[in-house]
Amino acid sequence: MKEIALLLCFGMGTIFCSFSQELPEVLITYYSKSGSTKTLAESIADGAKSVQGVKVTLLPIDQVTSQDLIKARAIIVGSPVYNANIAPPVQEFLNSWPFEGRPLKNKVGASFSTGGGISIGEELVMLNILHSMLIHGMIVIGGEETEAAFGASAVTGEAPFDAGIVDHVFLKKGFGLGSRVAKMVLAFPGEVK
Amino acid sequence: MKEIALLLCFGMGTIFCSFSQELPEVLITYYSKSGSTKTLAESIADGAKSVQGVKVTLLPIDQVTSQDLIKARAIIVGSPVYNANIAPPVQEFLNSWPFEGRPLKNKVGASFSTGGGISIGEELVMLNILHSMLIHGMIVIGGEETEAAFGASAVTGEAPFDAGIVDHVFLKKGFGLGSRVAKMVLAFPGEVK
Amino acid sequence: MKEIALLLCFGMGTIFCSFSQELPEVLITYYSKSGSTKTLAESIADGAKSVQGVKVTLLPIDQVTSQDLIKARAIIVGSPVYNANIAPPVQEFLNSWPFEGRPLKNKVGASFSTGGGISIGEELVMLNILHSMLIHGMIVIGGEETEAAFGASAVTGEAPFDAGIVDHVFLKKGFGLGSRVAKMVLAFPGEVK
Amino acid sequence: MKEIALLLCFGMGTIFCSFSQELPEVLITYYSKSGSTKTLAESIADGAKSVQGVKVTLLPIDQVTSQDLIKARAIIVGSPVYNANIAPPVQEFLNSWPFEGRPLKNKVGASFSTGGGISIGEELVMLNILHSMLIHGMIVIGGEETEAAFGASAVTGEAPFDAGIVDHVFLKKGFGLGSRVAKMVLAFPGEVK
Repeated sequence: MKEIALLLCFGMGTIFCSFSQELPEVLITYYSKSGSTKTLAESIADGAKSVQGVKVTLLPIDQVTSQDLIKARAIIVGSPVYNANIAPPVQEFLNSWPFEGRPLKNKVGASFSTGGGISIGEELVMLNILHSMLIHGMIVIGGEETEAAFGASAVTGEAPFDAGIVDHVFLKKGFGLGSRVAKMVLAFPGEVK
Repeated sequence: MKEIALLLCFGMGTIFCSFSQELPEVLITYYSKSGSTKTLAESIADGAKSVQGVKVTLLPIDQVTSQDLIKARAIIVGSPVYNANIAPPVQEFLNSWPFEGRPLKNKVGASFSTGGGISIGEELVMLNILHSMLIHGMIVIGGEETEAAFGASAVTGEAPFDAGIVDHVFLKKGFGLGSRVAKMVLAFPGEVK
Repeated sequence: MKEIALLLCFGMGTIFCSFSQELPEVLITYYSKSGSTKTLAESIADGAKSVQGVKVTLLPIDQVTSQDLIKARAIIVGSPVYNANIAPPVQEFLNSWPFEGRPLKNKVGASFSTGGGISIGEELVMLNILHSMLIHGMIVIGGEETEAAFGASAVTGEAPFDAGIVDHVFLKKGFGLGSRVAKMVLAFPGEVK
Repeated sequence: MKEIALLLCFGMGTIFCSFSQELPEVLITYYSKSGSTKTLAESIADGAKSVQGVKVTLLPIDQVTSQDLIKARAIIVGSPVYNANIAPPVQEFLNSWPFEGRPLKNKVGASFSTGGGISIGEELVMLNILHSMLIHGMIVIGGEETEAAFGASAVTGEAPFDAGIVDHVFLKKGFGLGSRVAKMVLAFPGEVK
């Protein structure tokens, strides 16, 4: 099947190929109670979809299997801030990732977070997720802009930011994170010999 | 009532006293699967008990109630390193702490960790526990020695450290952490007006 | 007035003296290039001054001597965010602190930071300052409010926050940090036996 | 010489070119007072050199120019632990990196550290260097082994580790970090569209 696709590629050029082959997948997964983290996740998915040539999957963490993780070429994980750290269900999720033989090594990893106050753990959550990804041997990147250097984060509960609403300044960071990760997946063949 | 207790103390010695007065309590609590974190916790309890005038309680996290936390004057929390962060059950435990009205404000907090390799998250676990304690408004301290500045940590799985054994160099740090926290509780009246 | 108190001390012994002696000092020190960190520092000083019974000193880091540090009962350090970390001059300052014999042990420590974007290092700067203070054996606390749990931080360059202006929401956190540290100094005798 | 190679490229296609052009460069740079960080740096250079097809440059930070950084495809930075953080000269070095136009974006970044005690800042130094690299938009990876997930670190002053000697367990981590970064540079074309 793959061989036929490659033959078609050879005959018809790379544009056709990018559709006929199995596209590299960007998996965006999150835990969201209030809905804010989900909203931010959707902006990341929009950003990733804006890049041609990748498959984008958006799922809450409880619907992600080990096989989904192994199949994906990039994994973007989001969590609300709970007591200055990753929410316990996300922590459990990260802990359930397949480790034996390090099947997630050299996958691209990125993170996002939402918090109810300015600088009350958004950085820590993004970075702690990245730290876990480093343990798995993943390749870690941030967003497109300097203001999203660790990933995309949103403040959703302290003035001037309304509770329950993800301001467009944060959605833009999400979009940039999604598009950067998608571009990285296309640029990086995913195999390190 | 307190005066009578003090009089009894005078007559009957400090051993009786430690039961008749309400001594300030140091609560040491941990999650331990392999037993290493428990062993380190016991060295911390020994250190705290070496200081006269405090009550020392050592409990696994699943036996600690909100009332225990509110009653204690100091809380020392320990976790093994899981994927460069606090173990999920400890994360859940921290997340279950009473927050409304911030009843844990101004309590003394400290932490300890055990990991299967050198510098693979021991610092992060200790510090992330302290960060959660700061969210609760706690007063945060490390151990007695510079080498235990963030708390007590132990490496239990990478040579030259044997798996499953907590080296005496780490037990000493645990002892120092326990004794420092106990002394701090005696020095600090616990009320901030 | 102070001289009379000292004379009385000489005549009446140390018990009386403990009331007539010099007030416990809160030292607030900062590095500021644009002026934002200085503005935040001033709000912290205002907060500390709102508490009766402490002496408040506000100085840029290049005017602080080792003797100032040793004399103070609390030290609050502020830095702008440079590349997600403490500004190099503040790093040098922290590194110049007296270490031999750990003369800063059991002093109260706190921190503040300003950054040009939301969640681009404000947390890391506050926490990294606190980590250095833990190395010195200091007792570490955050601000009065949950939203200032790691200390006081301000965003001064990303919309909706204007460049060069420290929004009142951040000045309020600064005030709360100053007042909490001052109250802590009064509550805690500063000696741990 | 280079011109001839380019002419050949033009005539013979890109496959030949990838051999005739300048090799992608891995720059390893460090600050070392006692010599330990330099020793660890050398093991990283050995690891990188073990991979065919890359150029390896090893320099102390004060000999590295902005042009060196821009020219390199990967940058590995090492620092001793000073007060739980990056040594001030390394902090200044990181701060001097070219930022305008983000010329270091998409370069591979990694880090290493040495400390005088177990878990007294080795993790923080490695991670804080990586955080600065994320601000520059770099792609961040750790070492080959799980035990070097954040980079390579060494303990050189607390028993059972001798002061001034970098144990072979740490040199092995350094070698693995160097070889992984070199392989990553070969796998990743360095351009993200």
